[in-house]
Order: sequence, then C-alpha cells, then structure tokens
Amino acid sequence: MHSIYQYQEFISDYLQEQYEDKEPKNLYEPIRYILELGGKRIRPVLTLMSSEVFDADYKKALPAALAVEVFHNFSLIHDDIMDDAPLRRGNETVHEKWDINTGILSGDAMLILAYQFFEKYEPNIFKELAKLFSKTALEVCEGQQWDVDFENREDVTIPEYLKMIQYKTAVLVAAAMKMGAIIAETSNENANLIYDFGLNLGLAFQLQDDYLDVFGDPETFGKQVGGDIIENKKTYLYLKAIEFASEDEKEQLLHLFSIHPIDNVDKINSVKAVFNATGASRVTKKAIQDYTLKAFETLHKINIDDDKKAILQLFGENLMGRKV
Amino acid sequence: MHSIYQYQEFISDYLQEQYEDKEPKNLYEPIRYILELGGKRIRPVLTLMSSEVFDADYKKALPAALAVEVFHNFSLIHDDIMDDAPLRRGNETVHEKWDINTGILSGDAMLILAYQFFEKYEPNIFKELAKLFSKTALEVCEGQQWDVDFENREDVTIPEYLKMIQYKTAVLVAAAMKMGAIIAETSNENANLIYDFGLNLGLAFQLQDDYLDVFGDPETFGKQVGGDIIENKKTYLYLKAIEFASEDEKEQLLHLFSIHPIDNVDKINSVKAVFNATGASRVTKKAIQDYTLKAFETLHKINIDDDKKAILQLFGENLMGRKV
Repeated sequence: MHSIYQYQEFISDYLQEQYEDKEPKNLYEPIRYILELGGKRIRPVLTLMSSEVFDADYKKALPAALAVEVFHNFSLIHDDIMDDAPLRRGNETVHEKWDINTGILSGDAMLILAYQFFEKYEPNIFKELAKLFSKTALEVCEGQQWDVDFENREDVTIPEYLKMIQYKTAVLVAAAMKMGAIIAETSNENANLIYDFGLNLGLAFQLQDDYLDVFGDPETFGKQVGGDIIENKKTYLYLKAIEFASEDEKEQLLHLFSIHPIDNVDKINSVKAVFNATGASRVTKKAIQDYTLKAFETLHKINIDDDKKAILQLFGENLMGRKV
Repeated sequence: MHSIYQYQEFISDYLQEQYEDKEPKNLYEPIRYILELGGKRIRPVLTLMSSEVFDADYKKALPAALAVEVFHNFSLIHDDIMDDAPLRRGNETVHEKWDINTGILSGDAMLILAYQFFEKYEPNIFKELAKLFSKTALEVCEGQQWDVDFENREDVTIPEYLKMIQYKTAVLVAAAMKMGAIIAETSNENANLIYDFGLNLGLAFQLQDDYLDVFGDPETFGKQVGGDIIENKKTYLYLKAIEFASEDEKEQLLHLFSIHPIDNVDKINSVKAVFNATGASRVTKKAIQDYTLKAFETLHKINIDDDKKAILQLFGENLMGRKV
C-alpha cells in the first residue's frame, strides 16, 4: 500500500500526460485548467487504494481513477454554470474565465473522455466498469435535479434529502471504491461491501459538510462558513430544526430563511441559535457518527487482512476528522 | 430488409417504452419531449438498415440505433443553448420551454443514457460499440468547437471547413452505419467500408444543406432559405466565392457579410448573385456530386449481394434528391 500523498502524486503525474497540445485549443484548455486546479483528489485516491486493498497493482487502476476524477470535474463545471458560481477552489470557474458555451461544451467532452479511460481494460472488465459508471453518473444527474427541485419545495422530507445527497455525492465515492475492487477481480461480495463502505462514508462526509458549513472553523473549513444559511439552503440541519421546532421557533426559522439581508451576521447567529435550541445540531452530529460507524461495520465484513482494514479505517477517520 | 417507414416505426415504438414515469420528472420530461419531436430519424434508420444489409435481425440493432438517436438529440439540446435558438423542428427548444439549466442537465443525462443502450450487448460487442461511440461523440464536440472558432476567424481554409463538417455531422452518420455492421459481426473490411460510405454521404448531405440554405425551394426546404446568409455564416459556398472572387467581388462579399440589415431581401439576392458570378455555386454542386459518387463507389466495394447495394444506393439517392 502507498500513502495518500503518493496516490495523489500518481494521479497528478498521470493527469499531466493527458490532453496536452490537443486541438481545438478552446475545447481542451478549459479541461486542463479545471483538472489542474487540483483539489484533494479523494475519489481517484480511493480507487487506487481500493485496488491495492484487494491486491492489485495501483497502476492497473489509474485509468479508472482518472475516469472518476474527470467525471467529477465535468460535474463541477456544469454545476457551477447552473449555480452561477464565480469561484471554484479559489480560482475563476470555467464559465467565468471563458464563457457559458465553453463550459457546456468542454464539460460534455469531459464526460466522453471519462468513458474513454475504461478502454484500457479488457472487454469483461470494461463492461463492468462502464456499466457501474453510467449508473452512477446518471444518479449524480438525478441528485442534482432533486437538489434544484428542492429549492422550490417547502415539504422536503428527511428521507428525500438523504436520497438526494446519496445520489449527488455518496454514490460516486462508493463507485470509485468499487471500481478498484472490479479491477482487482475480487469477489462480488467484497466489491459490494466496499461500495457500501464508500456509500456510508460519503453520506457521513456530506452531512458533515452541512454541519461544518454552519459550525465549522473559518480557519480550516475550505468554504465560507454560513454559506448555506446565506443562500437559505434546506440542509439536514434545517430540516431537522423544522421537525423539532416549537411553533415560535418554526415561525422564526421560516422567516429567517425567507430574507436576504445585506449583512448576514445577525441572520447566521439567529439561525445557529435555533439549530442549537431545537437539538438539530445534536442529531446531525449523531447522524454523522451513525453513518461513519455503519461504514466501519461494513468494512469489517470485507474479506481482507486486518491491516488493510486498519488502513481504510484510518483514511475514513482522517476524512471525518476535519476540524469542527 | 424493411422500408424506411417501417424502420421509423420500429424506432418510434422502441422509444415509446423509454423513460416513461421516470423520476425526477424535471429531468426526464425534457428528454421525452425532444425525443418525441420526431424528425426523420435518419441516423438510427441507417443503423437498422446496415444491420440487415449484413444479415442480422434489425431487432438486435435497435438499442444501438437508439443510442445514436439519443446522442443526436443530446447534441441538439446543447447546441440550441449555445446558438440561443428559440425553435427546433417548429417547436420550442428545451431551454426555451424550460430553462438553460434544465437543458444542460437533461442533455448530460441523455449522453449517459445513450451509453446505457450498449449494455444490451455482450462484452466484446459492447466494447467495440462504446469505443466507436466515444470516438465519434468526441469528434462531434470538436466539430462544434471548430464551428464556434470559425465564426471569429477570417482565414478559414476549405480543408478546415471540410474537417469541421466531417466532425460535426458526417462521423455520426458513418458511425451509425458501422454500428449495424459491428452488431451483425461482419468483417472489419465491410465495417470500415460502410463507415466510409456513411462518411462521404454525410459530407455530401451537409454540403447540400449549405447549398439548399441559399438556393433551396422555400416550399420544400425545412428551414428558412437564406438563413446562413442572414447570420453571415462562412459556409462552403462563401469560402469558394472568396477564393474565386475578383477584387471587386471580394470587397462586395466582405461588406455583405459584415452587415445586419433589418430587411434581408436585398442582401440575400446580392450574395446569391456573387455566389453565381464567381462560380462558387457551380463548384459546390460539383463537390456534392463528387462526395455522393465517392460514397457509391465505396458501396460497391462492400462484400454483399447486389440487391443490398441497390437498396443502400437508393436510400442515398433519396436522401440527396431533396428538391433544389
């Protein structure tokens, strides 16, 4: 096994070789640009790691890892257009640096380029990977659509919300790990267990993201703390607060989530107070913990050496140990 | 073999079964909408026809035919956003009827759905089809980018223009036919020959589209005659006219292609006159004929019965026989 840092290096070296000098420049330059903005490369790292956990050479898993990373960045370009986001990882988004049409077309090309990575594998593996990839990619689109739909709905339930973040975020983490298992040609049982491990870890991670968006340390949280509150986003915290709120608290929360003040400090503090008073913050922390534990329970059912389990658990703990 | 009308029916019956009642509605309704706007379904018809030419049951080719049709409609949705087009086949475009975000996301989903059709085939055929599909889809994106780039360039050459229309239009026709050959498991030689037949027919068809856009009969040509001239589009006719023009004609043409009058009648007539005077319309007709003949020559090298060749030639002649 290798360290996270080493996996990140393997990925970024392999990425360097791609799309250089490819024409038309106006199609491929935005692709190189977004891919080189970096990020933590969590998903492709998980593919490499999973392949080694099941005793394959990580090199064999590099194309699939890149497919996952290129797909993820495709979804960022198109999501940023839909959200009208000016910045991504502290840099201009593709549609800001170029224009919306460039973002649409370069994104489309990336979705196709992602599939092409699987061509490195022999037909049986190719089909298994491409099938899992298509299913996952479609779920990501569906999750994005649910997210958009939920903005205009006042009756979103907790199960609906969980399904949305499962599709929008967790399935790609799960699929990234299962691809490593498929490439290593381990048992179907192992492949499905590592998928479930990734799925629960992905859910825990996304719920934690909701939590840190409100209660995170501005020094260590990558994004603007309070961003979801400013945008009146109905996250897990919000839905739970509404569920647990007294009539007065509910009225206050509905009001706070209908306004767009110029200075958001008071609004953020008031929302935080309601999240705490209703117990929403406590149950959210509990849910994060539950999904993390569920991930680790699944991990222990996988038929691999204990030291391999320990490495995956450590990775999970690191991922979830982001400072609150 | 079946008639074109029968193939169209098979396709539209198979399409009917897809995506019904799928959720989220806001993702799948636009997909059903664009697919049900119809059109002539030339590309999937060619896949079915090609499979029967090589002695396979057309039913076996239906999923691949649908993949091609769904991909083609994906590209229409995204192109219509990029071109800011209000109408498609006489109806509202997806981004007009819904909004741009819906157009982007439903389009993305269609690209993935197209790949999923290939899952009906066993791994070896699956890989061959998906590989050809990815290569083709990427070329279509590249062609679209060249087309956008050419709008801002004054030095586009004829070979560059031909490469652009080859990528943007002809390769999908070619791939549609080759897919039928792959499914029928004919020889590689036959598969490559039918690809070349489709490619040359596609080029002839697109050049004819350029020609009819200027000289077509408003009664039978589906789009607005003179549309390319109104939009100052640098088509084959324009590039040839510039090549053959005297200094005076060139100056006149450059002027005409820089203005946007409210009433375009005089502009269209003046451009037509220059296209005729320079001989551009004559050489364009010649090029259409040359590519059509090249397609038919390739056809005759394919190792199939003469009656099958006759059927394909008839289809080609019908396609190219659109009233001028």
